[in-house]
Amino acid sequence: QWTVVDWKPKRLDMLGDPFGLGRIVQDGLAFRQNFSIRSYEIGADRTASVETLMNHLQDTALNHVKHAGLLGDGFGSTPEMCKKNLIWVVTKMQVMFDRYPTWGDVVQVDTWVAAAGKNGMRRDWVLRDYNTGEILTRASSCWVMMNKQTRKLSKLPDEVRAEIGSFFVDAPPVVDEDSRKLPKLTDSSADYIQTGLAPRWGDLDVNQHVNNVKYVDWILESAPQPILESHELASMTLEYRKECTRDSVLDSLTSVLGNPNDLANSGQVECQHSLRLKDGAEIMKGRTEWRPKRAPGNGSFGQFPAESA
Amino acid sequence: QWTVVDWKPKRLDMLGDPFGLGRIVQDGLAFRQNFSIRSYEIGADRTASVETLMNHLQDTALNHVKHAGLLGDGFGSTPEMCKKNLIWVVTKMQVMFDRYPTWGDVVQVDTWVAAAGKNGMRRDWVLRDYNTGEILTRASSCWVMMNKQTRKLSKLPDEVRAEIGSFFVDAPPVVDEDSRKLPKLTDSSADYIQTGLAPRWGDLDVNQHVNNVKYVDWILESAPQPILESHELASMTLEYRKECTRDSVLDSLTSVLGNPNDLANSGQVECQHSLRLKDGAEIMKGRTEWRPKRAPGNGSFGQFPAESA
Repeated sequence: QWTVVDWKPKRLDMLGDPFGLGRIVQDGLAFRQNFSIRSYEIGADRTASVETLMNHLQDTALNHVKHAGLLGDGFGSTPEMCKKNLIWVVTKMQVMFDRYPTWGDVVQVDTWVAAAGKNGMRRDWVLRDYNTGEILTRASSCWVMMNKQTRKLSKLPDEVRAEIGSFFVDAPPVVDEDSRKLPKLTDSSADYIQTGLAPRWGDLDVNQHVNNVKYVDWILESAPQPILESHELASMTLEYRKECTRDSVLDSLTSVLGNPNDLANSGQVECQHSLRLKDGAEIMKGRTEWRPKRAPGNGSFGQFPAESA
Repeated sequence: QWTVVDWKPKRLDMLGDPFGLGRIVQDGLAFRQNFSIRSYEIGADRTASVETLMNHLQDTALNHVKHAGLLGDGFGSTPEMCKKNLIWVVTKMQVMFDRYPTWGDVVQVDTWVAAAGKNGMRRDWVLRDYNTGEILTRASSCWVMMNKQTRKLSKLPDEVRAEIGSFFVDAPPVVDEDSRKLPKLTDSSADYIQTGLAPRWGDLDVNQHVNNVKYVDWILESAPQPILESHELASMTLEYRKECTRDSVLDSLTSVLGNPNDLANSGQVECQHSLRLKDGAEIMKGRTEWRPKRAPGNGSFGQFPAESA
């Protein structure tokens, strides 16, 4: 009942969106876009990377705003938000990875927005296998407005509510809220610490800020190698605290719950994460849950050497 | 006359490929695939990143082989190559970036193969703006076969020639061969050196090797910041020498031809590059040419903060 948009197998659906740029569906209440998973979007185990799926979430959100005719500045703010110097900032993101698509799979992403408290907005996503309708990923996020100059949070102005309110859907989140408190990790409580992470030129977006998907990269970067090899990410909860600019240098801290000595053979593994600046300020906190891969090892995989393409 | 495939504006073209997975065109001699440029594929100056375009080249090459029914192992080798334990390795790649596409642009990629000497294969690409037919990027590459076990180069076996020979096109390369010798850079001849570059888990492909597009990343990584900010890559020539595995740690060296003291205000800038292992072995050599950006600065750009999506 949490699905706003029912999935129906209909081949003709693609013809309404031949360029894969997406379109408004469900009487204007949701936005739908299809992605085919490219060869370069998959990782060592042949499935789409977490970064790829997060990028698809970001892209559909932006295209939803664009197709609703509300793209004031070209990158997510509505015309009234532009007038008032307001931008959206994400405060929380929860993602459940039920199954990872592979090269050639077509993923259908549906996204919609809802009210969240008095001044916030929730955005949900459901990613399905286009051919079977099977749910692959569900995500729910919370957003508030920030003044671009003062960098302070803002109430939702009436003028902006008038623009976006009619798009709000009355439906519970697709991922139940995980309200367990995330601890602040320290040098002594973390099991793994990676220091000196710095944005590269290519990580900057059009505002010369670090894209939020990059944060996920950095969190996964400090996850223990045995987990990366033997497990796949089943879910994550991210709390964004502070922005990261091009000159920021970060530490990524991870603590593993359970037995950290035999991770490769563990069942479900839970980790806690923290990204912090050199001065100790927290950029992001997070929790990840990992499950053993379905087909571990790569003995039966084909060849894809460094040079091959 | 170097274009094997003529561009014709035809809207219905997309309907033959609703999923953007590509198809064989021109009586079987070329492969065509369309990509819409996503919001996450553009960089700080709102144009598609070099990495994105290189990924599109790789993806169309693989899909060409797949659509020709020659994908023996799932990643580029033909059935006869699999029998003989042979894989393709790229030895040289030349790319001319005439104009960079931006978010929402649809790029039409055509690719085809040709004989190169007795034992090699050439693969060419032309990327066009789907709506105008304007050429955006041209690329030409050389490939030879390597034995997967011995890692030695191999002749082109007759059985493999029988599989692929009928696809060979009789046309000159889309980029004239740059046969100027690339010097080996050393600590003293390089102007910029970045040490300790190491592949991350996410950089590995299905064979746990580093994807060749990553090499390009590393080369650009050591390019001087003023050039990255004020110039755009106009062309590059890459010579692949040695493969890079997951445990490799690399240095990236760059030397700038001309006046390195006022790069931001330079016109065309030429750089030479080298990627080497700790033991000094060269992984790759390269030459890049940069031109001033058309609209420098980002004052008129909209907002896309770290947290926005």
